[in-house]
Amino acid sequence: MRLQMSIEDLMVFLDREFPQMKGEFAIDELGEMRIRTRLNVGERHLRPGGTVSGPSIFALADVSVYLAVLAMIGPQGLAVTTSCSVDFMRKPAAGVDLIAECRLLKLGRVLAVGEVLLFSEGVDAPVARASMTYSIPPKG
Amino acid sequence: MRLQMSIEDLMVFLDREFPQMKGEFAIDELGEMRIRTRLNVGERHLRPGGTVSGPSIFALADVSVYLAVLAMIGPQGLAVTTSCSVDFMRKPAAGVDLIAECRLLKLGRVLAVGEVLLFSEGVDAPVARASMTYSIPPKG
Amino acid sequence: MRLQMSIEDLMVFLDREFPQMKGEFAIDELGEMRIRTRLNVGERHLRPGGTVSGPSIFALADVSVYLAVLAMIGPQGLAVTTSCSVDFMRKPAAGVDLIAECRLLKLGRVLAVGEVLLFSEGVDAPVARASMTYSIPPKG
Amino acid sequence: MRLQMSIEDLMVFLDREFPQMKGEFAIDELGEMRIRTRLNVGERHLRPGGTVSGPSIFALADVSVYLAVLAMIGPQGLAVTTSCSVDFMRKPAAGVDLIAECRLLKLGRVLAVGEVLLFSEGVDAPVARASMTYSIPPKG
Repeated sequence: MRLQMSIEDLMVFLDREFPQMKGEFAIDELGEMRIRTRLNVGERHLRPGGTVSGPSIFALADVSVYLAVLAMIGPQGLAVTTSCSVDFMRKPAAGVDLIAECRLLKLGRVLAVGEVLLFSEGVDAPVARASMTYSIPPKG
Repeated sequence: MRLQMSIEDLMVFLDREFPQMKGEFAIDELGEMRIRTRLNVGERHLRPGGTVSGPSIFALADVSVYLAVLAMIGPQGLAVTTSCSVDFMRKPAAGVDLIAECRLLKLGRVLAVGEVLLFSEGVDAPVARASMTYSIPPKG
Repeated sequence: MRLQMSIEDLMVFLDREFPQMKGEFAIDELGEMRIRTRLNVGERHLRPGGTVSGPSIFALADVSVYLAVLAMIGPQGLAVTTSCSVDFMRKPAAGVDLIAECRLLKLGRVLAVGEVLLFSEGVDAPVARASMTYSIPPKG
Repeated sequence: MRLQMSIEDLMVFLDREFPQMKGEFAIDELGEMRIRTRLNVGERHLRPGGTVSGPSIFALADVSVYLAVLAMIGPQGLAVTTSCSVDFMRKPAAGVDLIAECRLLKLGRVLAVGEVLLFSEGVDAPVARASMTYSIPPKG
């Protein structure tokens, strides 16, 4: 299977379909079955002490798997998350972006499964790990 | 074990410790080892079509377990989510609040486990289920 | 939706399709979208100290959701587990059976989601909670 | 952090503490914070069609994280699984062993988190992924 969309294609699609998230996420790298994304950390993502909130970590993991799936199947707005699990392992560092390394482990006809490791930029030990299952809409 | 905090105590604590979430969440009911909460759904929680976003569903489940734990152990800001799993089962209804029914299944010395069913207000079939583990800071 | 199979139908089906599990599981109660099952605890399920092993807890949760789904859709051997999460909360009591209270939260065309609370017989506090997603084979 | 136990140490410990699992599992490779293990697939692990059962997949993932933790902290029988999530992605191949590639993502004072990819021997696409949290007993 090969990439159906470029980084630019994905960003145009994301901004059009999810205008309320505009500017929150960036794509650092894209490959077959994998993507590296970034949460442009701002005030609204923070908790006291300056660390990124749990929902923001969840959101970055979720959008990463979504974009990795779209890149492989083409622009289909209807793929939806059906389940996820997240382990929060370390406090995110204050004042830096959050980076997600995402890999698709399965891209089936009906379900896709991705795993994500999330890091504070410049820090080796991961902040969290997540796995996400997406349901893929039938063609046509 | 008995309740250490009232609904009002919890809301005062939440607003002081997490000012950036002010007004987002409300507590409808509180009991020993259980709580019913509400996401006051606004523009920022929505996705195209008017449904509540995944990160907002996650956030409501997370804050529900947090508040249920605090109500039992007293105001300790340092309890942190260590893991969660969520199944997203149905599209939230547009234009109504999201309600969380949360129950603590375990409240140990070190770990607490809560389960949450999430509903669109006025709809019987649940939107999502979540389970969350919180790590409880040592006393003193 | 109504029950398509009785307790006896389910046991006959289970023994025929999964002969290697014969005698391990029993059904205590069956209703629409819910089931109560039992692990007939024997030597092979135990760990040192006489408590039921993690894989045995997993197996009981898994078979419970499977049977609850079959009871509603009829005898289709091909339903398969696609994901699960389990929280192990307390050591099972020694020398008693393990009981599973299972409820289907969703029974869709493609996916079913069940939640399970597991108890040592005669003990109130749950040993574990589990949620399981099953993929349902297309009709035909 | 460095390895406290060798492959042989781990197998001697496992056989002594969990005699009922003797011969089921083998360790192919051991490193700091990682291990590769094997389920010696036999009749009792199989389902109709010759594929490895879900509980056997769970058991291999669980023992892998357990052994990876023990290798780093030394022989402490009391580490227990507190939570897990598993995605079952493909049918295991018939007639071959199941291999687990496990990596510890966190080894804290109280909790350890491991992730596991499981493969049918000789097949590239993973059968399942799992993440497991272990609670580590206090020293002394």
